[in-house]
Amino acid sequence: MRTIEWKDGVVITIDQSKLPTEEVMLEFRNCHDIALALKEMKMRGAPLIGVAAAYGLALTAYHSEAKDKETLLRELEESASLLKRTRPTAVNLFWAVDRVMRRAYEVHGDLDDLREAVIKEANRMADEDVKINRAIGKNGAKLLDDGDTVLTHCNAGSLATVDYGTALAVVRSAIEEGKHISVIADETRPKLQGARLTAYELMRDGIPVTLITDNMAGYVMAKGLVDKVIVGADRIVQDAVINKIGTYTVAVLAKEHGIPFYVAAPSSTFDLVRRAEDVIIEERNPEEVTHIGSVRIAPKGVNVLNPAFDITPLKYVDAIIYEGGVLTPSDVERIVQEGKVRP
Amino acid sequence: MRTIEWKDGVVITIDQSKLPTEEVMLEFRNCHDIALALKEMKMRGAPLIGVAAAYGLALTAYHSEAKDKETLLRELEESASLLKRTRPTAVNLFWAVDRVMRRAYEVHGDLDDLREAVIKEANRMADEDVKINRAIGKNGAKLLDDGDTVLTHCNAGSLATVDYGTALAVVRSAIEEGKHISVIADETRPKLQGARLTAYELMRDGIPVTLITDNMAGYVMAKGLVDKVIVGADRIVQDAVINKIGTYTVAVLAKEHGIPFYVAAPSSTFDLVRRAEDVIIEERNPEEVTHIGSVRIAPKGVNVLNPAFDITPLKYVDAIIYEGGVLTPSDVERIVQEGKVRP
Repeated sequence: MRTIEWKDGVVITIDQSKLPTEEVMLEFRNCHDIALALKEMKMRGAPLIGVAAAYGLALTAYHSEAKDKETLLRELEESASLLKRTRPTAVNLFWAVDRVMRRAYEVHGDLDDLREAVIKEANRMADEDVKINRAIGKNGAKLLDDGDTVLTHCNAGSLATVDYGTALAVVRSAIEEGKHISVIADETRPKLQGARLTAYELMRDGIPVTLITDNMAGYVMAKGLVDKVIVGADRIVQDAVINKIGTYTVAVLAKEHGIPFYVAAPSSTFDLVRRAEDVIIEERNPEEVTHIGSVRIAPKGVNVLNPAFDITPLKYVDAIIYEGGVLTPSDVERIVQEGKVRP
Repeated sequence: MRTIEWKDGVVITIDQSKLPTEEVMLEFRNCHDIALALKEMKMRGAPLIGVAAAYGLALTAYHSEAKDKETLLRELEESASLLKRTRPTAVNLFWAVDRVMRRAYEVHGDLDDLREAVIKEANRMADEDVKINRAIGKNGAKLLDDGDTVLTHCNAGSLATVDYGTALAVVRSAIEEGKHISVIADETRPKLQGARLTAYELMRDGIPVTLITDNMAGYVMAKGLVDKVIVGADRIVQDAVINKIGTYTVAVLAKEHGIPFYVAAPSSTFDLVRRAEDVIIEERNPEEVTHIGSVRIAPKGVNVLNPAFDITPLKYVDAIIYEGGVLTPSDVERIVQEGKVRP
């Protein structure tokens, strides 16, 4: 099953904030509710955020009562602006919204042609995401050896995408090739995507997974239990990979132990006109740190930091796996010098 | 107030498993309940574990119905054996039990002299712990500069000791000298001693503290927010410091960022006749990882690692602060070559 689906003007997804204890399906009929679900991380993961945003615009197009193209375009612009305010860091959001809007402005036909074009573009992006992830998996699988244990952080799996995943696509693809691969999943505080989502989807798919707390990463590496690290990305800039908080800590540990550190992400995650210092690192609600569910785990009123992402300089990255192949940091440098946004 | 107190055959402490949401006092009247509370980590922290064990023997001595010294000595041996089975890693436990038992065997007088000697030794060890921690604080304070922010892991504060703490003694002492010191506390999964205990006792004492999840340690160091790292220790062996899981990860990060990494611990934590490979790393219940309080945060039946401690090789340690001064790794090497257990 896909993580997100379009059916006759309804967007259907699973509420990731409730997994793994409850499997609750959500149905969205307007862009506002999509935006809220993104903010509240009921849907998360850079590729999924992109496709969800595209579907947000599709919902606006489908349900609009506009009588002419100009009115619908204005409504789409409002939806686009609303969506772009939900999460500042993952670039796929901006890329997806801009792509749908560009398509909308290209439509030469009438109001119904515009509606259809927007919905079609969103569906095309969802289909493309699955194909891209399959390609990422195939390209990355070459980097894994039979018997490898892969440490991953956060969830860059099928739940972070329309299907198949990015980092976990590499694991899935290697397993489909007949290799025996196990996964160690960092729980990934504060929102525990590793414990709640990565462990869940790997167990569901019969892939061996061991859960650790984030601070055990050094211990398992020192014990020789980790052969490769693969993580996803929220944005890849000229000098760094921006990904879920804790990724940088894992990257430093991997370097110290001589363990290859790979990033798996679609080309839409690249933003090679920017440097890390140009990117807003989203600071989220302190209660994500001080509470787990409704349980308070820290003193009332304690000062808290809660950056949702961190910055891993490219010197810690051995390779970036995308749908077009495998890039080294010097490949990235070359693409930057060519002035391109993405490979 | 001391974390542990003896009053007429009753040992009084605060239930650390309930902090910071509930301040529940516990009263122990027998060694068995002390042992259980250690196992369940209602009391934790290497120095406190040692003193609590000594008080466990004191309770046996106080409440025994033995009619002669030999019977009481046999009962004390049983209590000693019970206590030593509670936690395998912190050496202070074994040191404290052995010290009280040695004292017991030295008593030349009658049954009442034996009772009194055991109780007196336990009380002496509690008093000594506070003096030792003050000395650790004073020795370590020289390493802190006005305006420093100290990152600490787990709780090596007054709650981990009879009073004043070890790592946090250094912070307290520097502040008493007039320096402005802030603390960044790792929350320290799985049992969250940083969030629950370190944040709690520093807020109570008016010392500025900011709470982070463990995986933010790399981020705050890369941002230049950390000047020094100070942690406690559960056992210091010839080649490494064994301390709460996650300490090693922090040490690697500190090295990568050129941040001094200090360990603060009493001499009773040294065990320089052993190497790291000789020490049992306690593996605790997987539910500590899969649940927070009664909230399940991972799929049912997921495979979990839960080592309570990790091993930080001395090459990552800039200095060990103890009651006798400040030791570099080469000082430790010298003491090892002299064949001594502790400095």
